[in-house]
Amino acid sequence: METPSALTQLVLNSWDLQLTRFNQLLHALSDDRLLLPMAPGRSRGIYILGHLIAVHDRMIPTLYLGEQMYGSWHDTFLKNPDDPTVAMPSVQELRAYWSSVNQFLEEKFRILSPAEWLQKHSAVSEEDFAKEPHRNKLNLLLNRTNHLSYHHGQLVFLKEKLEL
Amino acid sequence: METPSALTQLVLNSWDLQLTRFNQLLHALSDDRLLLPMAPGRSRGIYILGHLIAVHDRMIPTLYLGEQMYGSWHDTFLKNPDDPTVAMPSVQELRAYWSSVNQFLEEKFRILSPAEWLQKHSAVSEEDFAKEPHRNKLNLLLNRTNHLSYHHGQLVFLKEKLEL
Repeated sequence: METPSALTQLVLNSWDLQLTRFNQLLHALSDDRLLLPMAPGRSRGIYILGHLIAVHDRMIPTLYLGEQMYGSWHDTFLKNPDDPTVAMPSVQELRAYWSSVNQFLEEKFRILSPAEWLQKHSAVSEEDFAKEPHRNKLNLLLNRTNHLSYHHGQLVFLKEKLEL
Repeated sequence: METPSALTQLVLNSWDLQLTRFNQLLHALSDDRLLLPMAPGRSRGIYILGHLIAVHDRMIPTLYLGEQMYGSWHDTFLKNPDDPTVAMPSVQELRAYWSSVNQFLEEKFRILSPAEWLQKHSAVSEEDFAKEPHRNKLNLLLNRTNHLSYHHGQLVFLKEKLEL
């Protein structure tokens, strides 16, 4: 097994795998189901979907891949907690946004070289990156993969059948 | 930034980070709180803690690091769903098991070389590994890190304060 490209590929595969698993769950949940809170007093499924869209959308500029696509919704899903009285896109619209943002990322990820993955992202300064070179794009992808798994575990509670 | 050791270190750091975050949550939850289900009709916190111990314990033989420590509880936490009528260790005991198994792993991880991380684990045959060399120890660690994040997201629902 060659390195570093094979090692970078491991991290990319992990992202793909978690995304595929999440999408299977999302596909199994009806729009109505996503309007329910994941547990009493907790966020609704629609909010978590919007939150994940905003976080993945922000990865576009943070990884220097282009312009974010849904910036007008970031405050709703990043700065504020879920509030059923606040306007937000429909579940149908969010499903489309989710596909678009992840498809965009996937296309860009395919052409990034292993060397580029080890470069700094925009959330770290040149100065800090010189001292902490592990704060690179690949590390950000690892963090975002775990972030997705975290909310995946929560969204599972909207399934009707008992599951771990 | 050097590779491949630096890339391996990224994955190890990600494991450490998720474990640290999980332990902060675990520390903030009382024993009584862990006896509650994470959502109506779902597993209790105590079960998820036992489940994570069993999964991490199984990593010891799977990564060829030694003998598992709590094998007698694996059926309870891996093969069967949560059942409050079934005997299991106390929360206090599980907290101690959790510390022990993760400390054991941490010590072993510290001495594994980058080359060793790219070797096969015991859950894949020599034949399959020849065809799919990405099924190595580092890949297993990536999967287990996401598994931890997944259940972390669920256990957060036992906190009294509303949180994403």
